[in-house]
Amino acid sequence: MKLLLLDTAEARLRYRRVASIMKREGIDCMLLGSNTNIYYLTGRVFAGYVLINSDAEVTCYVRRPVEMDGDNIVYIRKPEQITPGDVRSYALELDSATYSAVRRLRAIFPENAPMADASSVMMEARSVKTPVEIEEIRYSAARHDRVYRMIPGLYTPGMTDIEFQVEIERVMRLEGCLGYMRVNGESMEINMGNLLAGENADTPSPYDFTMGGEGTDPSMPVGANGSVIHPGETVMADMNGNFNGYMTDMTRTFTLGDIPDNVIKAHQCSIDICRELAAMGKPGVTMQQLYGRAMEMVKEAGLTRHYMGYRQQAPFIGHGIGIQLNEMPVITARSVTPLAEGNVIAIEPKFVFPHVGAAGIENTYLVTPGGMVSFNHAPEQLISLTV
Amino acid sequence: MKLLLLDTAEARLRYRRVASIMKREGIDCMLLGSNTNIYYLTGRVFAGYVLINSDAEVTCYVRRPVEMDGDNIVYIRKPEQITPGDVRSYALELDSATYSAVRRLRAIFPENAPMADASSVMMEARSVKTPVEIEEIRYSAARHDRVYRMIPGLYTPGMTDIEFQVEIERVMRLEGCLGYMRVNGESMEINMGNLLAGENADTPSPYDFTMGGEGTDPSMPVGANGSVIHPGETVMADMNGNFNGYMTDMTRTFTLGDIPDNVIKAHQCSIDICRELAAMGKPGVTMQQLYGRAMEMVKEAGLTRHYMGYRQQAPFIGHGIGIQLNEMPVITARSVTPLAEGNVIAIEPKFVFPHVGAAGIENTYLVTPGGMVSFNHAPEQLISLTV
Repeated sequence: MKLLLLDTAEARLRYRRVASIMKREGIDCMLLGSNTNIYYLTGRVFAGYVLINSDAEVTCYVRRPVEMDGDNIVYIRKPEQITPGDVRSYALELDSATYSAVRRLRAIFPENAPMADASSVMMEARSVKTPVEIEEIRYSAARHDRVYRMIPGLYTPGMTDIEFQVEIERVMRLEGCLGYMRVNGESMEINMGNLLAGENADTPSPYDFTMGGEGTDPSMPVGANGSVIHPGETVMADMNGNFNGYMTDMTRTFTLGDIPDNVIKAHQCSIDICRELAAMGKPGVTMQQLYGRAMEMVKEAGLTRHYMGYRQQAPFIGHGIGIQLNEMPVITARSVTPLAEGNVIAIEPKFVFPHVGAAGIENTYLVTPGGMVSFNHAPEQLISLTV
Repeated sequence: MKLLLLDTAEARLRYRRVASIMKREGIDCMLLGSNTNIYYLTGRVFAGYVLINSDAEVTCYVRRPVEMDGDNIVYIRKPEQITPGDVRSYALELDSATYSAVRRLRAIFPENAPMADASSVMMEARSVKTPVEIEEIRYSAARHDRVYRMIPGLYTPGMTDIEFQVEIERVMRLEGCLGYMRVNGESMEINMGNLLAGENADTPSPYDFTMGGEGTDPSMPVGANGSVIHPGETVMADMNGNFNGYMTDMTRTFTLGDIPDNVIKAHQCSIDICRELAAMGKPGVTMQQLYGRAMEMVKEAGLTRHYMGYRQQAPFIGHGIGIQLNEMPVITARSVTPLAEGNVIAIEPKFVFPHVGAAGIENTYLVTPGGMVSFNHAPEQLISLTV
C-alpha cells in the first residue's frame, strides 16, 4: 500500500504552506499525531506521526496499518523511537493532543528547546484551501445538494422528527456520506447532523453548535427528540455533508402547513444576510465586519430577539470548514481576522421561534477575489412538506 | 431544568465510589470536564466542569445550557471563575483533556499542589458498574438484540456491503440507537459500527478496533468498502448498541452461499471461547488467564494464523464497555488485572480468512460471582443470508 495518497505536487504545496508558517513562528520541527493533520499532509489516516521541519521535509512514523510503503516511512512501535535530531524549537498539537500524549512526546525533544503549539499552525495552514481541496469540497457539495433535493419526498404525514431524520440519514449514507464527521475540540457530539422541528428547536444546548435540541436521550442532548411533527411547525435540516474527507455545511428549512408571517420573514432575512455577506465577503474584510453587517440587517428586520436562538443564543454566525466541521476563521462580533482568498466558510444566520421552530439557511462558501461563492445550490426558499 | 438526572441515592453511590479511590490515591479534589465523566456523575451532559472532593462533595460549574437548577450549581463564563479553595493535591483528566485545557485548568489550583491524573481514577470507578448502570446496559442490549434478529431480513441479493450496512443502521436508529458512540482516546473514528464482508475483512486498520476494513474513502479507512457481497463470503456485523448512554458490543456473522469448513470451524471456536471464558470469568481471574485460555483453544483448533486478523493481528480479545466503547479492563496477554464483580466486558474472539471474510461472535458480559453472564441473546450460530 502506498502511504502518500496525495499527488506529489499537492503534497509539496501543503508541506510548503505549513513550513512557511513554521518559519514565521520560529518553529524548527513539528510532530503531528491527529488523524486530521495526518490526513491533510498525506491524504490518508494512519496510527503514528508526521514529522515536518521548516524546510518542508516530511517523515512518517507509522504504528499501523502494516504494509505501507513510500519515501521517508519509518515503522515504530512507540513514539520514543522517533528521533527528531538536534532541533532548537518544536511544536506539538497542544489543542488536540491530550496532556498525557504531549507529556510523552515532548520527552523525545531536547529538554531546553521551547515547545510551541502546532494546532494553531495547522489551523492557519488549513484555513486556506488548495485547489485540490476545493475540488474535494465541490464533490461533497454536489452530493449534499442531491440529497437535500430528495428531502421533501422522504416525509410522510405523522412522522416524528427522528423518523424523518433517519430517512434522510439513510439517503445521505446511500449517496456516500461517511457519517462520522471530524470536529475540532473535545466535546462536540452528534450523529450525522441535526434535524429540529417545532418547539424542540428552542431547547438550549450544552454543545457549541448554533442550534440545540433535546435529543432522544439525556446522554446525547442534541437534535431531534422524538416528537411528532405538527402542522404550523418548521423543520430545519442541518445534516452533515462529508462525502469524502471534506464536507460542506448546509441547512434548509421545511414547513408543515401554515406558519406565521414573522417566521417567513425571518427565513427571507437569513437568505438576504447570506447574499449580502457573500457579496461583501472579499479578501481583507474582517469577521467583525461580516458579523456586524448581519446584525444590522437583523435589527432592521426587528428580529433580534429570535436571532441565533431564543432561550439561548449562539455567539457566532459562521465558521471555517473543511476536514473538520469547525475550522478557521470564525465569524464573531469581535474577531478582526480578515478573510483570505481560499477560505471556505459556512454562514448560518438562523432564527428560533418558540412553538414554531427554527428558520433560516446555511451555505458553505469559497472566498474569491470577487466575493464569496456558494458550494451549495439546493433551493433556499422555505419548502412545504404538505402533500 | 433539573441538572441532576440521577436519583439522589445513585448519585451518592457514584460520588462515594470515586471519592474512595481519590482517598486511596491521596487526591483532595478532581475537576472533570469530559462529557463522559460529567454524564457519569450527573446523568446529563453540560458544558462545564464537575468538581468533586475526597469527601464526595460535588459542585457543578456550568457554562451551557442556560436554565439549569439544583444543588451546588455555579454558572461560569470561563474556568478561571472556579474556586477550588486551598487544596493540597488535585487531579485533572490528563488522558482525555487536551494539553491546552489542562494548562489552563491547573492555573486555578495552588501552584505548589501536585497534579495527578483523574482519567485513571474515573476509569477505575466506572469499570465496576452500579445496579442502575447494569439496568441501562440491559435496556440497550435488548434493543440491540432485537435489531440483530432483523438483520437477515434486511439483505437483498446483489447488495454491496455498504448498502447492507445502511439498512441495518436505519433499523438501529429507528429502534432508538443514538448513533454516535463515545470512545476513549483521540483517534478512533467510525460511523455506528463495522460491517465486514469477504476480502475486505482482511484490510489492515490504522485504528484500535479488532477488525479493519478499507472503508469507502481513504479519509475514513474503516469498515465496508462498497464491494458487492458474493456467495462464498461471510458478513460480520459489529454494530454499535448505544440505545441510551450505555452500550453493548455485539458481533454476529452471516454467510452467503457455501463457505469453507475451516471458517465454520473457526466460528464455532469463537462461540466455544466465549462460553469457556464466561464460565471461568469469576471475580479474581486475571486478564492474562482469560487471554491465555482463549489462545490455548485457538491453538488446539489449529487456527492461530487466522486469529484476530490475518495480515494484521489485534493484541486484545476483549475490553470493558459502558459509557465508552473501550473502558477498563482490557483482555491482553500480559495484564494481571483481576476481574471484579460488576465489570462489564465485551469478548470478541474473531478470525479472518483471506478471500472469505471474518468469522466469530462478540457478546457483552456482566461479571458475577458465578461467572460472566451475557447481556446479548441474539442467535450466535452462523446465519445464512441465502434466500
